Amino acid sequence: MSRIVLHDYFRSSASYRVRIALNLKGLSYEQHPVSLAANEQQSAEYKALNPQGFVPMLEWDGVRVTQSLAIFDFLDAHVKEPPFVPSDPEGRAHVLALALTVACDIHPLNNLRVLRYLKGTLGHEQDDVDAWYRHWVAEGLTALEALAAPRAGAFLYGDTVSMADICLVPQLYNGRRFDVPMDAYPTLLRAEASALALPAFAAAHPDRQESAQ
Amino acid sequence: MSRIVLHDYFRSSASYRVRIALNLKGLSYEQHPVSLAANEQQSAEYKALNPQGFVPMLEWDGVRVTQSLAIFDFLDAHVKEPPFVPSDPEGRAHVLALALTVACDIHPLNNLRVLRYLKGTLGHEQDDVDAWYRHWVAEGLTALEALAAPRAGAFLYGDTVSMADICLVPQLYNGRRFDVPMDAYPTLLRAEASALALPAFAAAHPDRQESAQ
Repeated sequence: MSRIVLHDYFRSSASYRVRIALNLKGLSYEQHPVSLAANEQQSAEYKALNPQGFVPMLEWDGVRVTQSLAIFDFLDAHVKEPPFVPSDPEGRAHVLALALTVACDIHPLNNLRVLRYLKGTLGHEQDDVDAWYRHWVAEGLTALEALAAPRAGAFLYGDTVSMADICLVPQLYNGRRFDVPMDAYPTLLRAEASALALPAFAAAHPDRQESAQ
Repeated sequence: MSRIVLHDYFRSSASYRVRIALNLKGLSYEQHPVSLAANEQQSAEYKALNPQGFVPMLEWDGVRVTQSLAIFDFLDAHVKEPPFVPSDPEGRAHVLALALTVACDIHPLNNLRVLRYLKGTLGHEQDDVDAWYRHWVAEGLTALEALAAPRAGAFLYGDTVSMADICLVPQLYNGRRFDVPMDAYPTLLRAEASALALPAFAAAHPDRQESAQ
């Protein structure tokens, strides 16, 4: 039995992704909460483990893996079922592109550190910060809807859950916290509903984490 | 022989990455320049091909692949040598994490569309925009240096070129355009020098593209 430790924060999108991934693979893990609200990710203790000072970080028998998409790849290498990407090159590339649209084109612009820079360093009011947030989420989800729709089924790619759905669900959760309207994304909402019906997704929800209490 | 078409822009970091990747695999390709300066990525013609309106996009015998990291994976599936990631799960995850640190944590914050939003919608002066740019590049490169250093050799991971170097070189090129100081990143500079000595990297340089003339 491998010893798996996840350093995460209940509300961090990327942490939420990794909890879903671990649950889908049926892996049990210890959770080490790192409070971004309290800036614990910048503590000397945590930065000794992860010099970037970001969550999530996975430890697997002492091997430390950062970046949620790298963690998915690592988990896929260790536990085959269910695979997070299809096996054919074209399907793989499509699912990766969907996941990267969330991970590269939406989420990085709306990270806590970015919102803090807008408010702190640049002195913006909350209204400007909220408009910034909604702008990038709406632009990114519009792209994701267009990219996903032709090959979506119950999930973002056909009728099988994939890495794309793992990235989608936390992003929609996050967007709703900022009241982003979701009506224009029927494909994304259908995939989200399919995913949330799975226990692996439900158990990973921020509100279900102990540190949320 | 496959027909490969790359839709790119000479100065786009993600396009530069894909040119390097194609060159490393020894693949010949047609180049279809899309001028971001002239907003051609938003044209109806281009958006019919890629609804997201981003470059790069690869067409491989008519199969369209977006997102540079998904394109690397697709190329790796079709042409084995040289592989862009190591074969062991731990090495793979490490190289992916390095590449994702550039692709998710640095580059998205400094895209042209983001700089335009800061200047246009938020009304910032060029000085604020430049400071924003340098802030995220410096923070990201500091993280990348710390993450890479323990396992770097001539390249970012050992003595073999990988996806991490493919992401690094365009990011450093991009950072220098904004006069980001680079002295604090000896590991990154060493890997960059090793990479630039390879013809695949040299031929992919923005200044060597026809559309740069």
